Amino acid sequence: MFNDFKLMDDRPIYIQLKDYLKKKITNGQLLAHQKLPSTRELSKLLSISRNTVLTAYADLEQEGFIFAVKGKGHFVDAVETAKSPAIHLDWTQKTNTTTQLAEALDLMKHGVRRTKEMISFNSIAPDEALFDVENVKRAFLQRMAIEGHIVLNYGYAKGYKPLIDYLLHYMEMKGVDIANKDMLITNGFTEGLDILLSSLQKNSGRILCENPTHHSALKLFKLHGYEVQGIDMEDDGMAIDALDQALSEHTFDLAYLIPSYHNPTGIVTSSEKRMALMRRLSEQQIPIIEDGFNEELRYSGSHLAPLATFAGQGNQVIYVSSFSKILFPGLRVGWILADKALIHSLESVKRARTIHSSTLDQALLYQYLHDGYFEKYLKKVKAAYKKKYECTVYYCKHYLPYKRLAGDGGLHLFIELEDALDARKLLKLCLQKGVSFFPGDVFYTDNKGKNTLRLGFSRLKEEEIALGIQTIGHILKHEYGG
Amino acid sequence: MFNDFKLMDDRPIYIQLKDYLKKKITNGQLLAHQKLPSTRELSKLLSISRNTVLTAYADLEQEGFIFAVKGKGHFVDAVETAKSPAIHLDWTQKTNTTTQLAEALDLMKHGVRRTKEMISFNSIAPDEALFDVENVKRAFLQRMAIEGHIVLNYGYAKGYKPLIDYLLHYMEMKGVDIANKDMLITNGFTEGLDILLSSLQKNSGRILCENPTHHSALKLFKLHGYEVQGIDMEDDGMAIDALDQALSEHTFDLAYLIPSYHNPTGIVTSSEKRMALMRRLSEQQIPIIEDGFNEELRYSGSHLAPLATFAGQGNQVIYVSSFSKILFPGLRVGWILADKALIHSLESVKRARTIHSSTLDQALLYQYLHDGYFEKYLKKVKAAYKKKYECTVYYCKHYLPYKRLAGDGGLHLFIELEDALDARKLLKLCLQKGVSFFPGDVFYTDNKGKNTLRLGFSRLKEEEIALGIQTIGHILKHEYGG
Repeated sequence: MFNDFKLMDDRPIYIQLKDYLKKKITNGQLLAHQKLPSTRELSKLLSISRNTVLTAYADLEQEGFIFAVKGKGHFVDAVETAKSPAIHLDWTQKTNTTTQLAEALDLMKHGVRRTKEMISFNSIAPDEALFDVENVKRAFLQRMAIEGHIVLNYGYAKGYKPLIDYLLHYMEMKGVDIANKDMLITNGFTEGLDILLSSLQKNSGRILCENPTHHSALKLFKLHGYEVQGIDMEDDGMAIDALDQALSEHTFDLAYLIPSYHNPTGIVTSSEKRMALMRRLSEQQIPIIEDGFNEELRYSGSHLAPLATFAGQGNQVIYVSSFSKILFPGLRVGWILADKALIHSLESVKRARTIHSSTLDQALLYQYLHDGYFEKYLKKVKAAYKKKYECTVYYCKHYLPYKRLAGDGGLHLFIELEDALDARKLLKLCLQKGVSFFPGDVFYTDNKGKNTLRLGFSRLKEEEIALGIQTIGHILKHEYGG
Repeated sequence: MFNDFKLMDDRPIYIQLKDYLKKKITNGQLLAHQKLPSTRELSKLLSISRNTVLTAYADLEQEGFIFAVKGKGHFVDAVETAKSPAIHLDWTQKTNTTTQLAEALDLMKHGVRRTKEMISFNSIAPDEALFDVENVKRAFLQRMAIEGHIVLNYGYAKGYKPLIDYLLHYMEMKGVDIANKDMLITNGFTEGLDILLSSLQKNSGRILCENPTHHSALKLFKLHGYEVQGIDMEDDGMAIDALDQALSEHTFDLAYLIPSYHNPTGIVTSSEKRMALMRRLSEQQIPIIEDGFNEELRYSGSHLAPLATFAGQGNQVIYVSSFSKILFPGLRVGWILADKALIHSLESVKRARTIHSSTLDQALLYQYLHDGYFEKYLKKVKAAYKKKYECTVYYCKHYLPYKRLAGDGGLHLFIELEDALDARKLLKLCLQKGVSFFPGDVFYTDNKGKNTLRLGFSRLKEEEIALGIQTIGHILKHEYGG
C-alpha cells in the first residue's frame, strides 16, 4: 500500500510524508476510519526514521486528517472529499472590455520570445551583473537587527516612515520645496501612475504628453479612458510651438512629462524648455505628472533640476519616480511626491487597493540608502552604463544608416530611419540573424513612428552591442527590401 | 561661511557634506562660478578628514553641481534655480467620487487613535512577538546565495515561478484539482480581490456575500459600484433559506464567501453547508470568490476542505488568499488560484497596474516555506493563539452579558449584545477606561449590527484579555445607560 512513497525534493522528509498521506486521504485511497500502520511499521516499510513518522502523524492529527485512539493507533479522519457537480464557465467571456484592452496592449504577450543566444536590445532593465548583492545582504541584516518584528508586521498605507523621511530629504536636495508636500510609497512608478489616474477627476478626459512616450504610461492612459494628445519631440525637449497650438485648441486634465532621459527617445529636456513648459502649463492651471525616470543617470553636464523644483512653492507638479532602473527592480518601491491634501486622498485609495507596499522592501531600501551604499553603487553603475552608452553611440554612428539618433545618456538610444523604412519589417530580418530590438511605433500616440526603433543597451556586453548594431546595419544596407 | 555645518545623523560624513553644499547651491547661498574653499582649507575649517572633502567634491562634480578648473580649484556650476510663478491648485476639488468614497470608508481615518497603554481588541494582525525573525534571516540569506541577482531584478507579472509551483502543490494537498488552473501572485489578498473586481464583467451589478462580512471586501465592492446583498449567518454558516430567497429574487454576478473563521463572526461553515452553497451557486452558474482567510488556523476538529476542493474539476471557484494573518503581513504576498484562462487575463491587468509583486518578498517566502520553517512556525502560533482564544472565550462567558457569541477559532470573536444596546455608545464608555474594540456595524451590508462588536485577541496578553473583557462587562452591567 505504501510502497509508492518517494522523496520528491529536498524539503524536510516529514513534510513530504505528510503530503504523501494527505494526498491518499483527500483522493480517497485511504478511507475514513481506516487504520494506519504503526509508526514503527511505517518507518521500517519506508526506511525512514521513526521520529519522522511520529512528527508527520502528530501534524496530521493536529490538522484534522487523522485521529489517534489510545492503545489502538492512528485512523483516517472523515475528511470531506464530496464534490459538487463540476460546472465549467467560459472565463474568456467574463472579463470586461478594459481587461481585454489590457491584454491587447500587453507587449509581453505579443512580443517576440527571445532565446538565450539572441542579442536583444529590448530591455532597459538594469544589468544584474552590477548588483552589489553583498551590501543588500548587509542592509537587510542591519535593518532586521534594528526592528525585524516591525518590518515583518503590518505597516502604514502611506509607507515606511524612515524611508519617506529619507526620500523627502533626497528630493529637497534636488531643490524641491517640500513644505506642504507629502509622499506616498507605491509598488514602483507604475502603481503610482495607476493610483493617480484612478483618483483624479476627469473633466475634458484629455491628457497631454510627449510623442513618443513611455509605453506603460500610454497603456494606462488608454485603460483609464483618456484621449491622449502627444506633442512631437525636438532634440532639447517638446516642440513648444506644437504645445502652444494644442493648448489653444483643447483643454487638458493632465500633462505627463519625462524631462530626463525621456523614454523612448533618451532626450533630456533643456533648462530653458523646462522653464517654458512650466510657464505655459501653469498659465492654464494644468497639473503635471513628472516622471523622474532615470534622472539619476546623468553621465556629464550640469545638474538639471526636476520640474518639481521649478514649481517652487506651487503645488501643480506631482513627481512620481522609483530607483527601479538604477537599483533593484525586484524590490517594488516607488514614490509620489505631491501636495499634502492630494497625498492624504491617495493614501485611502492605496489602502483600499493593497493595504500598503512591502515593508520589507521599503525597510531594506531605506537601510541601503542610509548606509551610503546607494551613493557608491550609483557611481559604479554610472561609469559602467556610460561606457555602454558611448559604445552604442559609436557603433550606431559608424554602422547604422539612420536619419536621426537621439539619446543624451540613460540606458537606451532612439533611432529614426528614413521615412519609407519599416522597423517591424527590419525586425523580422534581424530576428533571423539573432538580433532583436523594440519597434518604436508602440511608443507613439498617433500611430506614427513606423520608421523608429529603441535600442536598450543596459544588459548587453560591449561585444554584443558591436555585433548587434553591425548586424542591423548590414541588413539595412544589403538585405532590407532586397 | 561654512561654520553652520553640523553632522545631522549617522550617515557617512561625505554624504552629509555633499547634502550641505547641495543645499547651499540650490537655494542660492552659493552662486554660480563662486570659488569653493580648497579641500585642505575646508577639511581644516570643518574638522573633518581631507579625504572626506575630496570624495564629496568629486561626487558633486560628477553630479554637475560644481566644476573643477585645473590648478585653480573648484567652482559652483550654473545650477538651475529659476522658479516659474508658483500656482496653487485646490487638490481637494480634483479627486473623483470614487476616491472621496474611499476616504469616507477608510476606517483608519475615522477610527480611534489608540494610545500605547490602551487595551485594544481592534487588531486581528499577527502577534509580532511570535515572529521567528531568525529563520526569516536564514531563508533570506539562503535564497540570496542561490540567486540573489535574479531576486533583485525584474520578475514576471504572474509571480515568482518557484513560489507559484510551491503554492499550487500546497493547494493540491488541500484536495484542490489544479488541472486547468493557474495562479497569479498579488500584493496580499486585498490586491487580488481588487484586480478581480476591476477585471470581471458587470451584468446585474449585484454581488452576494455573508452578512456581516470582511470590511475591506465590502469597501472594495462599493468602490467598484456593486450592489451588495448580504445573507445572514447562522452558527454553521450562511442561512440557506435566506440564500434561496435571494437567488429566487435576483441574479448575481458574483458570490464572495469566507468559509473558515469568517470575518468578523469567526464562524466556520460546516461541511454540509459548504456542499449546499456549492450546489445552489453552481445551479445558477454564479462564480464564487472564496476568501481563504485564516483557513490555516484550525485549532481542533477534522480537516475541512475549501470550496475550491468541492468544485472538483469545475472552474467556478476563484480562491484568493495569503498567509498575512499567520505569517508576516509586512511581506505583501497573496495569490489567486483560478481557471487558467482567467489567470491569463488577470496577468495583463496585474502587469499594467504594478508590473509584478516584490520578487524579494516572494523569493523569501518561498524559501521559508520550502525549508519547512512555515510548518514549524504554524504549530507554534496555533498553540499560542489557541490559548488566547480559549482565554477570550472564558472571560466573555463569565463577564460579558451577551445575547450571542460567535467564533470557532481564528484570531477574533464576535459578540451580539441585546438588541437595544448600541456598541458605539459602549465603545465611548470603554475608551474612557482605556479599552477599545471594533463596533460591528461597519461589517454589515444593510446598516444593521448596531448591537455587535468584534474582539480581536491576537496581539494581547492573557492578562490584558482578562482585564479588557472584565472592563467591558462591568461597563455594560453598571454604567451603560446609567
